[in-house]
Amino acid sequence: MTKDHEKKTRRMKAIVAYDGTAFSGWQVQGDKRTVQAEVERAITEITGESPRIFCSGRTDSGVHAIGQVVHFEIAAKIPAKKLFLALNSKLPPDVRIMKIVRAKSDFDARFSATGKEYRYFIFNGPQCPPHLRHFRAHVYRKLDVKLMREATAQLVGEHDFAAFSANPGYEREGTVRTIHALTIRKTSGEITIAVRGNGFMYKMVRSLAGFLIRVGTGELPANAARTILESKLRTAHVPTAPACGLFLWRVFYRPTNSQAVQHPKA
Amino acid sequence: MTKDHEKKTRRMKAIVAYDGTAFSGWQVQGDKRTVQAEVERAITEITGESPRIFCSGRTDSGVHAIGQVVHFEIAAKIPAKKLFLALNSKLPPDVRIMKIVRAKSDFDARFSATGKEYRYFIFNGPQCPPHLRHFRAHVYRKLDVKLMREATAQLVGEHDFAAFSANPGYEREGTVRTIHALTIRKTSGEITIAVRGNGFMYKMVRSLAGFLIRVGTGELPANAARTILESKLRTAHVPTAPACGLFLWRVFYRPTNSQAVQHPKA
Repeated sequence: MTKDHEKKTRRMKAIVAYDGTAFSGWQVQGDKRTVQAEVERAITEITGESPRIFCSGRTDSGVHAIGQVVHFEIAAKIPAKKLFLALNSKLPPDVRIMKIVRAKSDFDARFSATGKEYRYFIFNGPQCPPHLRHFRAHVYRKLDVKLMREATAQLVGEHDFAAFSANPGYEREGTVRTIHALTIRKTSGEITIAVRGNGFMYKMVRSLAGFLIRVGTGELPANAARTILESKLRTAHVPTAPACGLFLWRVFYRPTNSQAVQHPKA
Repeated sequence: MTKDHEKKTRRMKAIVAYDGTAFSGWQVQGDKRTVQAEVERAITEITGESPRIFCSGRTDSGVHAIGQVVHFEIAAKIPAKKLFLALNSKLPPDVRIMKIVRAKSDFDARFSATGKEYRYFIFNGPQCPPHLRHFRAHVYRKLDVKLMREATAQLVGEHDFAAFSANPGYEREGTVRTIHALTIRKTSGEITIAVRGNGFMYKMVRSLAGFLIRVGTGELPANAARTILESKLRTAHVPTAPACGLFLWRVFYRPTNSQAVQHPKA
């Protein structure tokens, strides 16, 4: 007998994309409009059940997602393909379920994750084209991408990132994290920072982006990261870049944790 | 004495970008919210003058622009750089002046134009990521880009495009146009149709996009364009693709018509 049979519920894994502009972030908080509340409401409307949904990690107010991952349990025996269409028909246009599959009963959107990728998008020019205004940080001072790339070298690897967390004292798992890859791409006026790591603390990606932008403007030298990391102190050298430039891009799991899920490209 | 001195006004050329989502198109029409009305209001607020602004060509409700071009005349002797900042400070966030320069007195945003480029953006997949929903046509049936590319061959060149106009009888300049280039790019779930030509009739680009989408789904053969062009009749074979996928990308002028203007890339 599997755990699923005992509980008569099935665990589902879903990839959720959202435009964070009009949300007070992911997590349910009172009467505020949150992504979690919208997804839970849609599940209840379709199944009549009220499961709690668990995500890979909360996102802040104004932050977007292409590949947020959630799990939840339902008793309703609706095929995943039908559930996909039904949930999307009940969700507001700024939230979409991109994929939904049945998962193993021990799959956990947060604790089974082996890593995450975030992308931070910057429009670098005098004026940001209006259709991008909610999805780019606008930096009008010309950024030196070569310096920004130089600065990434000291950040990749395992470090104590306390100086890049907005609230290091509240991190239950400590402040050491590993960044596996940190790349900067430039195309026309756009600069994209992609960062992959085993975990990210509160506002850590926006702090990394804020630091790299300062390097790009020449306000900080490209080799400033080492000193900042070693200080373990959050200072004004590391500003938090705006939420609107940030996308939770992808969450990684060991292939055995659940059915293979093809992540959407965007 | 130049014409400018006689009139004591100077002609300005500006590149305007807008998110067309919340606009009833370009042109002033009563109390409706239009891009033209917003730009004229901003000019009046800054200069105290009420010049009429002339664009390269109107865009419909919901259509976006990266590189709309306008001209207008003002007496105020504000340097272009100051005017650029001042106008943007008075414009709503969904309209931006991307560039502004003084133009020769005979420069005309519409009649000096030698051609235009439009881009039509399609998201091709089961669900469109929410942050793109106002800026992509969403086609969930899988499109065959190879067939779409084949279909472009019969459309490039000089043709009577009456069958691709929503209102051919109202085209004062007749219905013959030249398409200089028509290319289709695919990256991940996105398909972009870029079309350059010497002029476009009412809803012509959205009609070309609608036709190419039908070819991509297999509803029409790739060689259907010739028969449709020769019929000179608008039929249900040529649907008008949604406004939200369309961007006026760039307007071309002979280099001598005005000061060189670097068009923004996006």
